[in-house]
Amino acid sequence: MVLQQLIFVTFILPASVHRSVSDVRCLDSCRVGFISSLSFQEQMDKAASGAPHPYWPRDLSVPHYVDNDRSMPEILLFLFSVSGALFLLMWLFTRNELPVFAGGRRLSGARRLALCWFTVCGFIHMVVEGWFTLHYRAIPSDQSLLSQLWKEYSKGDSRYVIADNFTVCMETVTALFWGPLSIWTVVAFLGCRSCRFVLQLIVSLGQLYGTVLYFYTEHRDGYIHSQPGHPIYFWFYFVFLNFLWVVIPLFLILDAWRQLSTAQELCDSRVMGKNRPKRQ
Amino acid sequence: MVLQQLIFVTFILPASVHRSVSDVRCLDSCRVGFISSLSFQEQMDKAASGAPHPYWPRDLSVPHYVDNDRSMPEILLFLFSVSGALFLLMWLFTRNELPVFAGGRRLSGARRLALCWFTVCGFIHMVVEGWFTLHYRAIPSDQSLLSQLWKEYSKGDSRYVIADNFTVCMETVTALFWGPLSIWTVVAFLGCRSCRFVLQLIVSLGQLYGTVLYFYTEHRDGYIHSQPGHPIYFWFYFVFLNFLWVVIPLFLILDAWRQLSTAQELCDSRVMGKNRPKRQ
Repeated sequence: MVLQQLIFVTFILPASVHRSVSDVRCLDSCRVGFISSLSFQEQMDKAASGAPHPYWPRDLSVPHYVDNDRSMPEILLFLFSVSGALFLLMWLFTRNELPVFAGGRRLSGARRLALCWFTVCGFIHMVVEGWFTLHYRAIPSDQSLLSQLWKEYSKGDSRYVIADNFTVCMETVTALFWGPLSIWTVVAFLGCRSCRFVLQLIVSLGQLYGTVLYFYTEHRDGYIHSQPGHPIYFWFYFVFLNFLWVVIPLFLILDAWRQLSTAQELCDSRVMGKNRPKRQ
Repeated sequence: MVLQQLIFVTFILPASVHRSVSDVRCLDSCRVGFISSLSFQEQMDKAASGAPHPYWPRDLSVPHYVDNDRSMPEILLFLFSVSGALFLLMWLFTRNELPVFAGGRRLSGARRLALCWFTVCGFIHMVVEGWFTLHYRAIPSDQSLLSQLWKEYSKGDSRYVIADNFTVCMETVTALFWGPLSIWTVVAFLGCRSCRFVLQLIVSLGQLYGTVLYFYTEHRDGYIHSQPGHPIYFWFYFVFLNFLWVVIPLFLILDAWRQLSTAQELCDSRVMGKNRPKRQ
């Protein structure tokens, strides 16, 4: 709830104010609250552009599109409460000593945060992005919760609602590989498996490369699939949420690099010791 | 030369025969040799389709396209002789004992092959793909050797000659990151640096992911940018050459996984030993 309130206060509330100030047509709607204001704004935008959908570019063809019947806060509440619950559960689960972990030591706070991150990644890659991978053709007309989530997100990047070729391919690889491998990373750390940092490196590099291509392709397209400057759709949905998958994987790659290099150094020094002539 | 002869006998010669049999219009041209036959075939194809270029789909728009003035064997000779020379040089360079390597041991044959591979990757990623990254807009009209190489390759995948968005992004990342990192991998192995297998894993995973997306995007496009079934352009250029960057990186990822996991296991066992209570 703290996270949700933070998001509301940081992104949604200023956006609501911004909209109200910039568009006098919203004033009546703003009196009856934030949700109605958004809905009214969108309706006005749609009416003004003549497009039967809220996506960019405004002349984009989205056949069979049906408006969401769930509000933005409802959809975001689902996403962040499930992610937050998984994060919290993993945090609590790793609070105590793990008997299987090397020498019964406690996991450090940073390591526990990393495991919480991979747990959330497993959920988002396999469930949320997995849904897109399986149903991307039906999403514009579908009213299930996850389809509505993608229709909402597509306001920040309409490539999802038109099943853009690269987007579908990248999401399929993410759902098929980085999702299950995220969960395997968590299991490997909990069980102190020797492959745990290799898995961390593979998942994080896969996420980083996918996100770099995701941003770069849209940058070269001139950000036509979003509304540049929009506080929620562009800055929060498109930039901020995806940028998490640049910064955190980058940090985890460096961490795995350091850990694995240290281990390799130890291994090399042992080999060197064994190969040293007896007379030395 | 052996490699070039092998390629000629395996791919180019049967293709020449295939063309001659399937198109009676080629008979006159075939008498004056393989190169003329290809050129004549292409001219006939172009004349028949009305398109001023040899690319697929035949109605593709390639503004400012200028025909290559170098023949296919000349271009392939350049690519494979430089790659072959670099491969051979690295093979010879790693033949003797490397004094800096752990305990003065010899590198295994498989490890030497891996270093030859990364050397060739460094050349292809930085020089060949680097050229594409810098000059993709000018390539259709440019007659420099590397531009002609890309115009030749584009017969197997015309996305290169139209500067397809995903292709440009993927190639830019490849040239900027996987190229220099390939060279760093070679240097790290020669100097027995502790990061050598981490680098091998990063480069190989980057190459694998890029190639998977490269194939997958074209598969979803229905292979419209090539001439499916063509023995050289489709099977050799598009499938075979790129498939090398699936099979070899996959093998090198598994190798790095095994090496790094073994090192981590050793590291963990040492930590376990230190943390074990004295009474045990």
